[in-house]
Amino acid sequence: MQEKKHVPKATLERLSLYYKTLQNLDNEEVVTTSAIELAEILDIKPEKIRKDLSMVGKFGMKGLGYDVIHLKTNIANILGLQNYWRLAIIGVGNLGAALANYEKISDWGFVIAALFDIDENKIGEEINGVRVYDFKKFASISRRKLIDIGVIAVPDDAAQKVADTLIAAGVKGIWNFTAVQIDAPKNIKVVDENLMTGLSALSFYLNQNSN
Amino acid sequence: MQEKKHVPKATLERLSLYYKTLQNLDNEEVVTTSAIELAEILDIKPEKIRKDLSMVGKFGMKGLGYDVIHLKTNIANILGLQNYWRLAIIGVGNLGAALANYEKISDWGFVIAALFDIDENKIGEEINGVRVYDFKKFASISRRKLIDIGVIAVPDDAAQKVADTLIAAGVKGIWNFTAVQIDAPKNIKVVDENLMTGLSALSFYLNQNSN
Repeated sequence: MQEKKHVPKATLERLSLYYKTLQNLDNEEVVTTSAIELAEILDIKPEKIRKDLSMVGKFGMKGLGYDVIHLKTNIANILGLQNYWRLAIIGVGNLGAALANYEKISDWGFVIAALFDIDENKIGEEINGVRVYDFKKFASISRRKLIDIGVIAVPDDAAQKVADTLIAAGVKGIWNFTAVQIDAPKNIKVVDENLMTGLSALSFYLNQNSN
Repeated sequence: MQEKKHVPKATLERLSLYYKTLQNLDNEEVVTTSAIELAEILDIKPEKIRKDLSMVGKFGMKGLGYDVIHLKTNIANILGLQNYWRLAIIGVGNLGAALANYEKISDWGFVIAALFDIDENKIGEEINGVRVYDFKKFASISRRKLIDIGVIAVPDDAAQKVADTLIAAGVKGIWNFTAVQIDAPKNIKVVDENLMTGLSALSFYLNQNSN
Protein backbone atom coordinates (compact mmCIF):
# COMPACT_ATOMS: atom_id res chain seq x y z
CA MET A 1 0.00 0.00 0.00
CA GLN A 2 1.27 3.36 -1.11
CA GLU A 3 1.40 6.28 1.30
CA LYS A 4 -1.13 8.97 0.48
CA LYS A 5 0.50 12.26 -0.38
CA HIS A 6 -1.24 15.52 0.23
CA VAL A 7 -0.92 17.59 -2.91
CA PRO A 8 -2.64 21.01 -2.87
CA LYS A 9 -5.31 21.58 -5.51
CA ALA A 10 -3.35 24.43 -7.13
CA THR A 11 -0.38 22.07 -7.58
CA LEU A 12 -2.66 19.43 -9.13
CA GLU A 13 -3.92 22.04 -11.57
CA ARG A 14 -0.37 22.96 -12.53
CA LEU A 15 0.56 19.26 -12.88
CA SER A 16 -2.22 18.84 -15.40
CA LEU A 17 -0.92 21.91 -17.27
CA TYR A 18 2.59 20.39 -17.30
CA TYR A 19 1.11 17.13 -18.56
CA LYS A 20 -0.73 18.93 -21.37
CA THR A 21 2.39 20.86 -22.33
CA LEU A 22 4.58 17.75 -22.28
CA GLN A 23 2.07 16.00 -24.49
CA ASN A 24 2.25 18.88 -26.98
CA LEU A 25 6.06 18.81 -26.87
CA ASP A 26 6.06 15.05 -27.35
CA ASN A 27 3.74 15.43 -30.37
CA GLU A 28 6.24 17.90 -31.80
CA GLU A 29 8.94 15.25 -31.20
CA VAL A 30 10.77 17.36 -28.63
CA VAL A 31 12.95 15.03 -26.53
CA THR A 32 14.07 17.15 -23.56
CA THR A 33 12.73 20.26 -21.90
CA SER A 34 13.59 22.46 -18.93
CA ALA A 35 11.86 24.37 -16.17
CA ILE A 36 12.79 27.54 -18.07
CA GLU A 37 11.10 26.33 -21.26
CA LEU A 38 7.98 25.15 -19.41
CA ALA A 39 7.95 28.48 -17.57
CA GLU A 40 7.97 30.41 -20.83
CA ILE A 41 5.20 28.35 -22.39
CA LEU A 42 2.98 28.42 -19.33
CA ASP A 43 3.81 31.80 -17.82
CA ILE A 44 4.59 30.21 -14.45
CA LYS A 45 7.83 30.97 -12.56
CA PRO A 46 10.58 28.36 -13.18
CA GLU A 47 11.26 28.07 -9.43
CA LYS A 48 7.63 27.10 -8.89
CA ILE A 49 7.81 24.48 -11.64
CA ARG A 50 10.99 23.00 -10.14
CA LYS A 51 9.35 22.94 -6.72
CA ASP A 52 6.17 21.28 -8.04
CA LEU A 53 8.13 18.62 -9.88
CA SER A 54 10.38 17.94 -6.89
CA MET A 55 7.27 17.45 -4.73
CA VAL A 56 6.08 14.62 -6.93
CA GLY A 57 9.35 12.76 -7.49
CA LYS A 58 12.94 12.98 -8.64
CA PHE A 59 13.02 14.21 -12.22
CA GLY A 60 15.65 15.96 -14.29
CA MET A 61 19.35 16.38 -13.98
CA LYS A 62 21.13 19.65 -13.39
CA GLY A 63 22.04 21.15 -16.75
CA LEU A 64 20.41 18.37 -18.76
CA GLY A 65 16.77 19.26 -18.25
CA TYR A 66 13.90 16.79 -18.22
CA ASP A 67 13.24 13.89 -20.53
CA VAL A 68 9.82 14.74 -22.01
CA ILE A 69 8.38 11.20 -22.18
CA HIS A 70 9.76 10.17 -18.79
CA LEU A 71 8.36 13.26 -17.06
CA LYS A 72 5.03 12.95 -18.87
CA THR A 73 4.65 9.30 -17.82
CA ASN A 74 5.52 10.08 -14.22
CA ILE A 75 2.99 12.88 -14.01
CA ALA A 76 0.38 10.61 -15.62
CA ASN A 77 1.04 8.03 -12.90
CA ILE A 78 0.65 10.60 -10.15
CA LEU A 79 -2.57 11.94 -11.62
CA GLY A 80 -3.88 8.39 -12.08
CA LEU A 81 -4.24 8.95 -15.82
CA GLN A 82 -3.14 5.39 -16.59
CA ASN A 83 -6.05 3.89 -14.72
CA TYR A 84 -8.59 4.10 -17.53
CA TRP A 85 -11.28 5.51 -15.28
CA ARG A 86 -14.68 4.85 -16.83
CA LEU A 87 -17.05 7.79 -17.29
CA ALA A 88 -20.77 8.09 -17.81
CA ILE A 89 -22.12 11.41 -19.07
CA ILE A 90 -25.58 12.26 -17.81
CA GLY A 91 -27.46 14.74 -19.99
CA VAL A 92 -26.86 14.70 -23.71
CA GLY A 93 -27.70 18.31 -24.54
CA ASN A 94 -25.11 20.45 -26.31
CA LEU A 95 -22.71 20.31 -23.40
CA GLY A 96 -23.01 16.54 -22.87
CA ALA A 97 -22.62 15.96 -26.61
CA ALA A 98 -19.60 18.28 -26.70
CA LEU A 99 -18.02 16.27 -23.87
CA ALA A 100 -18.86 12.96 -25.60
CA ASN A 101 -16.97 14.28 -28.65
CA TYR A 102 -14.10 15.82 -26.66
CA GLU A 103 -11.09 13.84 -27.83
CA LYS A 104 -8.80 14.86 -25.00
CA ILE A 105 -10.81 12.69 -22.60
CA SER A 106 -9.61 9.50 -24.27
CA ASP A 107 -6.20 10.98 -25.12
CA TRP A 108 -5.68 11.38 -21.38
CA GLY A 109 -6.61 7.77 -20.64
CA PHE A 110 -10.28 8.01 -19.68
CA VAL A 111 -13.02 5.90 -21.22
CA ILE A 112 -16.47 7.28 -21.94
CA ALA A 113 -18.42 4.08 -21.38
CA ALA A 114 -22.05 5.24 -21.50
CA LEU A 115 -24.29 8.26 -22.03
CA PHE A 116 -27.63 8.82 -20.31
CA ASP A 117 -30.64 11.00 -20.92
CA ILE A 118 -34.37 11.00 -20.17
CA ASP A 119 -35.39 12.20 -23.63
CA GLU A 120 -36.87 9.30 -25.61
CA ASN A 121 -35.66 10.83 -28.87
CA LYS A 122 -32.09 10.57 -27.66
CA ILE A 123 -32.22 7.15 -25.97
CA GLY A 124 -30.76 4.51 -28.30
CA GLU A 125 -28.75 7.03 -30.33
CA GLU A 126 -24.96 6.92 -30.47
CA ILE A 127 -22.55 9.79 -30.07
CA ASN A 128 -18.95 9.21 -31.05
CA GLY A 129 -19.67 5.46 -30.93
CA VAL A 130 -21.14 5.51 -27.42
CA ARG A 131 -24.77 4.67 -26.80
CA VAL A 132 -27.33 6.85 -25.01
CA TYR A 133 -29.23 4.87 -22.35
CA ASP A 134 -32.37 5.66 -20.40
CA PHE A 135 -31.31 7.33 -17.17
CA LYS A 136 -34.01 5.34 -15.34
CA LYS A 137 -31.79 2.30 -15.88
CA PHE A 138 -28.66 3.97 -14.52
CA ALA A 139 -28.09 1.57 -11.61
CA SER A 140 -28.01 -1.62 -13.67
CA ILE A 141 -26.16 -0.21 -16.69
CA SER A 142 -23.62 1.54 -14.48
CA ARG A 143 -22.87 -1.80 -12.79
CA ARG A 144 -22.49 -3.56 -16.12
CA LYS A 145 -20.33 -0.81 -17.60
CA LEU A 146 -18.21 -0.46 -14.43
CA ILE A 147 -18.72 3.30 -14.18
CA ASP A 148 -16.25 5.11 -11.87
CA ILE A 149 -17.09 8.74 -12.62
CA GLY A 150 -20.42 10.38 -13.36
CA VAL A 151 -20.38 13.58 -15.40
CA ILE A 152 -23.39 15.77 -14.62
CA ALA A 153 -24.37 17.87 -17.64
CA VAL A 154 -28.09 18.32 -16.91
CA PRO A 155 -30.05 21.50 -16.12
CA ASP A 156 -29.31 22.92 -12.66
CA ASP A 157 -32.66 21.95 -11.16
CA ALA A 158 -32.08 18.25 -11.89
CA ALA A 159 -28.47 18.15 -10.65
CA GLN A 160 -28.92 16.98 -7.05
CA LYS A 161 -31.43 14.28 -8.01
CA VAL A 162 -29.07 12.96 -10.66
CA ALA A 163 -26.20 13.05 -8.14
CA ASP A 164 -28.27 11.06 -5.63
CA THR A 165 -28.90 8.38 -8.25
CA LEU A 166 -25.20 8.22 -9.18
CA ILE A 167 -24.14 7.96 -5.55
CA ALA A 168 -26.70 5.25 -4.78
CA ALA A 169 -25.41 3.29 -7.80
CA GLY A 170 -21.86 3.42 -6.43
CA VAL A 171 -19.95 5.92 -8.57
CA LYS A 172 -16.74 7.07 -6.88
CA GLY A 173 -16.45 10.56 -8.29
CA ILE A 174 -18.61 13.27 -9.84
CA TRP A 175 -17.55 15.86 -12.42
CA ASN A 176 -20.20 18.54 -12.03
CA PHE A 177 -20.90 21.01 -14.85
CA THR A 178 -23.95 22.59 -13.20
CA ALA A 179 -23.92 25.68 -10.98
CA VAL A 180 -25.37 23.63 -8.11
CA GLN A 181 -23.32 22.80 -5.02
CA ILE A 182 -23.80 19.01 -4.93
CA ASP A 183 -24.46 17.37 -1.55
CA ALA A 184 -22.47 14.13 -1.35
CA PRO A 185 -21.03 11.88 1.35
CA LYS A 186 -17.35 12.42 2.23
CA ASN A 187 -16.16 9.33 0.35
CA ILE A 188 -17.51 10.62 -2.98
CA LYS A 189 -15.23 13.19 -4.59
CA VAL A 190 -17.07 15.99 -6.39
CA VAL A 191 -15.15 18.29 -8.73
CA ASP A 192 -17.01 21.36 -9.97
CA GLU A 193 -16.22 22.63 -13.42
CA ASN A 194 -16.83 26.34 -13.23
CA LEU A 195 -16.48 27.67 -16.76
CA MET A 196 -16.92 31.20 -15.48
CA THR A 197 -13.54 31.19 -13.72
CA GLY A 198 -11.63 31.56 -16.97
CA LEU A 199 -14.00 34.14 -18.38
CA SER A 200 -13.90 36.24 -15.22
CA ALA A 201 -10.09 36.14 -15.20
CA LEU A 202 -10.17 37.46 -18.77
CA SER A 203 -12.65 40.13 -17.75
CA PHE A 204 -10.38 41.17 -14.87
CA TYR A 205 -7.40 41.67 -17.20
CA LEU A 206 -9.44 43.65 -19.73
CA ASN A 207 -10.79 45.79 -16.92
CA GLN A 208 -7.29 46.59 -15.66
CA ASN A 209 -6.15 47.61 -19.11
CA SER A 210 -9.14 49.77 -19.91
CA ASN A 211 -8.56 51.97 -16.86
CA MET B 1 -6.78 56.58 -13.74
CA GLN B 2 -6.91 53.74 -11.30
CA GLU B 3 -3.73 52.06 -10.11
CA LYS B 4 -3.30 48.56 -11.51
CA LYS B 5 -3.26 45.94 -8.79
CA HIS B 6 -1.42 42.73 -9.22
CA VAL B 7 -3.74 39.93 -8.18
CA PRO B 8 -2.37 36.36 -8.52
CA LYS B 9 -4.29 34.05 -10.83
CA ALA B 10 -5.18 31.65 -7.98
CA THR B 11 -6.75 34.56 -6.07
CA LEU B 12 -8.74 35.57 -9.15
CA GLU B 13 -10.02 32.01 -9.41
CA ARG B 14 -11.10 32.06 -5.77
CA LEU B 15 -12.73 35.48 -6.26
CA SER B 16 -14.85 34.02 -9.03
CA LEU B 17 -15.81 31.15 -6.70
CA TYR B 18 -16.78 33.66 -3.98
CA TYR B 19 -18.81 35.55 -6.56
CA LYS B 20 -20.62 32.38 -7.64
CA THR B 21 -21.33 31.43 -4.03
CA LEU B 22 -22.57 34.92 -3.12
CA GLN B 23 -24.86 34.82 -6.13
CA ASN B 24 -26.31 31.51 -4.92
CA LEU B 25 -26.73 32.89 -1.38
CA ASP B 26 -28.39 36.02 -2.78
CA ASN B 27 -30.78 33.85 -4.82
CA GLU B 28 -31.67 32.05 -1.59
CA GLU B 29 -32.31 35.50 -0.05
CA VAL B 30 -29.48 35.16 2.45
CA VAL B 31 -28.56 38.68 3.63
CA THR B 32 -25.24 38.23 5.46
CA THR B 33 -22.50 35.65 5.38
CA SER B 34 -19.12 35.05 6.99
CA ALA B 35 -15.70 33.73 6.09
CA ILE B 36 -16.59 30.63 8.12
CA GLU B 37 -19.74 30.00 6.07
CA LEU B 38 -17.97 30.61 2.74
CA ALA B 39 -15.17 28.33 3.95
CA GLU B 40 -17.62 25.51 4.65
CA ILE B 41 -19.38 25.82 1.31
CA LEU B 42 -16.18 26.06 -0.71
CA ASP B 43 -13.81 23.92 1.32
CA ILE B 44 -11.24 26.74 1.50
CA LYS B 45 -9.66 27.84 4.81
CA PRO B 46 -11.45 30.85 6.39
CA GLU B 47 -8.10 32.63 6.93
CA LYS B 48 -7.42 32.43 3.22
CA ILE B 49 -10.87 33.83 2.43
CA ARG B 50 -10.35 36.73 4.83
CA LYS B 51 -6.95 37.42 3.31
CA ASP B 52 -8.29 37.32 -0.27
CA LEU B 53 -11.13 39.67 0.58
CA SER B 54 -8.85 42.07 2.43
CA MET B 55 -6.57 42.20 -0.63
CA VAL B 56 -9.38 43.48 -2.78
CA GLY B 57 -10.92 46.01 -0.42
CA LYS B 58 -12.41 46.68 2.99
CA PHE B 59 -15.40 44.39 3.51
CA GLY B 60 -17.12 43.03 6.54
CA MET B 61 -17.20 44.05 10.15
CA LYS B 62 -15.83 42.02 13.05
CA GLY B 63 -18.63 39.86 14.39
CA LEU B 64 -21.19 41.02 11.83
CA GLY B 65 -19.92 39.18 8.78
CA TYR B 66 -20.30 40.34 5.21
CA ASP B 67 -23.33 41.84 3.52
CA VAL B 68 -24.00 39.42 0.64
CA ILE B 69 -25.09 41.96 -1.98
CA HIS B 70 -22.43 44.50 -1.06
CA LEU B 71 -19.63 41.93 -1.22
CA LYS B 72 -20.98 40.43 -4.45
CA THR B 73 -21.12 43.86 -6.12
CA ASN B 74 -17.61 44.73 -4.99
CA ILE B 75 -16.17 41.48 -6.33
CA ALA B 76 -18.06 42.02 -9.59
CA ASN B 77 -16.44 45.45 -9.89
CA ILE B 78 -12.98 44.04 -9.31
CA LEU B 79 -13.50 41.27 -11.84
CA GLY B 80 -14.87 43.75 -14.36
CA LEU B 81 -18.16 41.86 -14.48
CA GLN B 82 -20.18 45.09 -14.74
CA ASN B 83 -18.54 46.06 -17.99
CA TYR B 84 -20.79 44.04 -20.27
CA TRP B 85 -17.89 42.67 -22.28
CA ARG B 86 -19.11 41.56 -25.69
CA LEU B 87 -18.28 38.05 -26.85
CA ALA B 88 -18.19 36.36 -30.23
CA ILE B 89 -18.10 32.56 -30.30
CA ILE B 90 -16.19 31.11 -33.23
CA GLY B 91 -17.16 27.54 -34.09
CA VAL B 92 -20.75 26.45 -33.58
CA GLY B 93 -20.22 22.73 -33.06
CA ASN B 94 -21.51 21.10 -29.89
CA LEU B 95 -19.14 23.06 -27.68
CA GLY B 96 -19.85 26.44 -29.30
CA ALA B 97 -23.58 25.74 -29.16
CA ALA B 98 -23.29 24.70 -25.51
CA LEU B 99 -21.53 27.99 -24.74
CA ALA B 100 -24.12 29.98 -26.70
CA ASN B 101 -26.77 28.38 -24.47
CA TYR B 102 -24.75 28.69 -21.25
CA GLU B 103 -26.90 31.03 -19.15
CA LYS B 104 -24.21 31.88 -16.63
CA ILE B 105 -22.43 33.96 -19.29
CA SER B 106 -25.19 36.56 -19.33
CA ASP B 107 -25.94 36.12 -15.62
CA TRP B 108 -22.39 37.27 -14.97
CA GLY B 109 -22.76 40.37 -17.13
CA PHE B 110 -21.31 39.27 -20.45
CA VAL B 111 -23.10 39.66 -23.78
CA ILE B 112 -22.86 37.04 -26.52
CA ALA B 113 -23.14 39.38 -29.48
CA ALA B 114 -22.42 37.11 -32.45
CA LEU B 115 -21.62 33.54 -33.47
CA PHE B 116 -19.39 32.55 -36.37
CA ASP B 117 -18.85 29.42 -38.41
CA ILE B 118 -17.66 28.45 -41.88
CA ASP B 119 -20.38 25.82 -42.41
CA GLU B 120 -22.98 27.18 -44.85
CA ASN B 121 -25.68 25.08 -43.19
CA LYS B 122 -25.12 26.93 -39.95
CA ILE B 123 -24.64 30.47 -41.26
CA GLY B 124 -27.88 32.44 -40.88
CA GLU B 125 -29.21 30.18 -38.10
CA GLU B 126 -29.88 31.50 -34.60
CA ILE B 127 -28.87 29.92 -31.31
CA ASN B 128 -30.43 31.30 -28.16
CA GLY B 129 -31.45 34.37 -30.17
CA VAL B 130 -27.98 35.09 -31.52
CA ARG B 131 -27.20 34.84 -35.22
CA VAL B 132 -24.48 32.70 -36.81
CA TYR B 133 -22.40 34.73 -39.28
CA ASP B 134 -19.91 33.70 -41.94
CA PHE B 135 -16.47 33.74 -40.33
CA LYS B 136 -15.05 35.22 -43.56
CA LYS B 137 -16.86 38.42 -42.59
CA PHE B 138 -15.45 38.48 -39.05
CA ALA B 139 -13.56 41.80 -39.38
CA SER B 140 -16.56 43.88 -40.45
CA ILE B 141 -19.16 42.21 -38.23
CA SER B 142 -16.85 42.31 -35.22
CA ARG B 143 -16.45 46.07 -35.72
CA ARG B 144 -20.21 46.58 -36.02
CA LYS B 145 -20.96 44.36 -33.01
CA LEU B 146 -18.17 45.87 -30.88
CA ILE B 147 -16.64 42.51 -30.01
CA ASP B 148 -14.19 42.58 -27.06
CA ILE B 149 -13.59 38.87 -26.55
CA GLY B 150 -13.31 36.04 -29.07
CA VAL B 151 -14.19 32.55 -27.88
CA ILE B 152 -12.34 29.90 -29.91
CA ALA B 153 -14.35 26.66 -30.09
CA VAL B 154 -13.04 25.29 -33.40
CA PRO B 155 -10.99 22.13 -34.10
CA ASP B 156 -7.39 22.37 -32.88
CA ASP B 157 -5.86 22.62 -36.34
CA ALA B 158 -7.85 25.79 -37.13
CA ALA B 159 -7.18 27.52 -33.80
CA GLN B 160 -4.15 29.67 -34.62
CA LYS B 161 -5.59 30.85 -37.94
CA VAL B 162 -8.82 31.86 -36.20
CA ALA B 163 -6.81 33.62 -33.48
CA ASP B 164 -4.84 35.57 -36.11
CA THR B 165 -8.10 36.77 -37.68
CA LEU B 166 -9.50 37.81 -34.28
CA ILE B 167 -6.33 39.69 -33.37
CA ALA B 168 -6.16 41.45 -36.73
CA ALA B 169 -9.79 42.52 -36.23
CA GLY B 170 -8.94 44.10 -32.86
CA VAL B 171 -10.37 41.79 -30.20
CA LYS B 172 -8.81 42.46 -26.79
CA GLY B 173 -9.02 39.01 -25.29
CA ILE B 174 -9.31 35.38 -26.33
CA TRP B 175 -11.01 32.56 -24.44
CA ASN B 176 -9.42 29.46 -25.93
CA PHE B 177 -11.16 26.08 -25.71
CA THR B 178 -8.69 24.26 -27.98
CA ALA B 179 -5.59 22.36 -26.84
CA VAL B 180 -3.41 24.69 -28.91
CA GLN B 181 -1.05 27.19 -27.30
CA ILE B 182 -2.16 30.37 -29.08
CA ASP B 183 0.55 32.77 -30.28
CA ALA B 184 -0.60 36.32 -29.59
CA PRO B 185 1.00 39.73 -29.03
CA LYS B 186 1.55 40.80 -25.41
CA ASN B 187 -1.38 43.24 -25.40
CA ILE B 188 -3.90 40.48 -26.21
CA LYS B 189 -4.87 38.45 -23.17
CA VAL B 190 -5.40 34.75 -23.89
CA VAL B 191 -7.07 32.54 -21.28
CA ASP B 192 -6.97 28.79 -21.93
CA GLU B 193 -9.88 26.72 -20.77
CA ASN B 194 -8.41 23.35 -20.02
CA LEU B 195 -11.32 21.05 -19.25
CA MET B 196 -8.90 18.27 -18.40
CA THR B 197 -7.70 20.04 -15.25
CA GLY B 198 -10.86 19.18 -13.34
CA LEU B 199 -11.00 15.63 -14.63
CA SER B 200 -7.36 14.97 -13.80
CA ALA B 201 -7.87 16.32 -10.26
CA LEU B 202 -10.75 13.85 -9.89
CA SER B 203 -8.58 11.06 -11.26
CA PHE B 204 -5.84 11.94 -8.76
CA TYR B 205 -8.25 11.63 -5.81
CA LEU B 206 -9.68 8.33 -7.04
CA ASN B 207 -6.15 7.04 -7.56
CA GLN B 208 -5.16 7.92 -3.99
CA ASN B 209 -8.19 6.16 -2.59
CA SER B 210 -7.82 3.01 -4.64
CA ASN B 211 -4.30 2.36 -3.35
